[in-house]
Amino acid sequence: MFKGEKTRQKIVVKAARLFNQHGFEGGSMSALMEATGLEKGGIYRHFSSKEELAAEAFDHAWHSAFATRMQDLESVPNTVDRLKRFVENFVERRPAVPGGCPLLNTAIDSDDGNPVLRERALNALHSWRSRLASIVISRIQKKEIRRDIDPKRLATVIISSLEGALMMSRLEKDRDPLLAVESYLEGYLEKEVRFRK
Amino acid sequence: MFKGEKTRQKIVVKAARLFNQHGFEGGSMSALMEATGLEKGGIYRHFSSKEELAAEAFDHAWHSAFATRMQDLESVPNTVDRLKRFVENFVERRPAVPGGCPLLNTAIDSDDGNPVLRERALNALHSWRSRLASIVISRIQKKEIRRDIDPKRLATVIISSLEGALMMSRLEKDRDPLLAVESYLEGYLEKEVRFRK
Repeated sequence: MFKGEKTRQKIVVKAARLFNQHGFEGGSMSALMEATGLEKGGIYRHFSSKEELAAEAFDHAWHSAFATRMQDLESVPNTVDRLKRFVENFVERRPAVPGGCPLLNTAIDSDDGNPVLRERALNALHSWRSRLASIVISRIQKKEIRRDIDPKRLATVIISSLEGALMMSRLEKDRDPLLAVESYLEGYLEKEVRFRK
Repeated sequence: MFKGEKTRQKIVVKAARLFNQHGFEGGSMSALMEATGLEKGGIYRHFSSKEELAAEAFDHAWHSAFATRMQDLESVPNTVDRLKRFVENFVERRPAVPGGCPLLNTAIDSDDGNPVLRERALNALHSWRSRLASIVISRIQKKEIRRDIDPKRLATVIISSLEGALMMSRLEKDRDPLLAVESYLEGYLEKEVRFRK
């Protein structure tokens, strides 16, 4: 990797942490300069604007969170068990970039504002939900999942309850909301989603 | 109401809208001056700091959202039906202060930052969940609710899935996530929460 690329990547990593904890507006240039050890000119040599940097920082933070949540899913053969593992990953594994879920943070940060960040968050949500839904679709035929389940809506319910619980757990500094939702989703997946002869 | 009180209240109402849409960091003094038609000195005659104003603005926005969501609940006699009405209120009724849920916005905005706002959001979450849990507790004895239901965890599941769905619906500009979660919570309340002889 060339030195310029290395510096660019270092800025993205530091910015990801800063923006994920303090938001786009709250992540100031002075904090970014402090975190990277670079002057303003040194940062903007690599990015045309704060917005461009924030968009790349979001993608970095999101890829890290996504990888953490989807980890080891392929090794679980049954689909319902795979969805349960996904829920467990979300609850138990903390992504490398601190500050909570980049998608939730950026969605809230940008829903009345920054269109570039909003677009990135929207793409992240769509690809995440599609990935979960595709796990379900492929297995309805194989009689692992009940036929009356709507894959997209199931993915929506799982994502929304986990994201809401994460907001509550972070606000309360208490794992109980995440654990309550985990136990409830597990019950739902067993009773209402798993195919039974 | 004295003129000073009226002006103070007007500032709170305008600030509530601004901060709920753009966050504490994103709601700038110049935007606040524009929204209120007042100079900086005219605003700070009534508040000791931006933080104090933001805290009062949060309380205003939250009381409005809370009232909207709890509307008409007392008129529904059965507890499960009352919880279903609550879910319906959340999905169907938009609070007077635009920008989404003040609790969700402020929780995300302040979880790595502003301790005063964080405290307000925490209090809002606690009183909201207690209120929902107390509806449930009072009726377990009356055999409207199954005895194995944990009232606090039930309230947690309802709040978290609705808040997560609101985030998704606002990001996608599509009601479907809220409708998917509504239908799923209704099913859950009927099948797993309602007492059956």
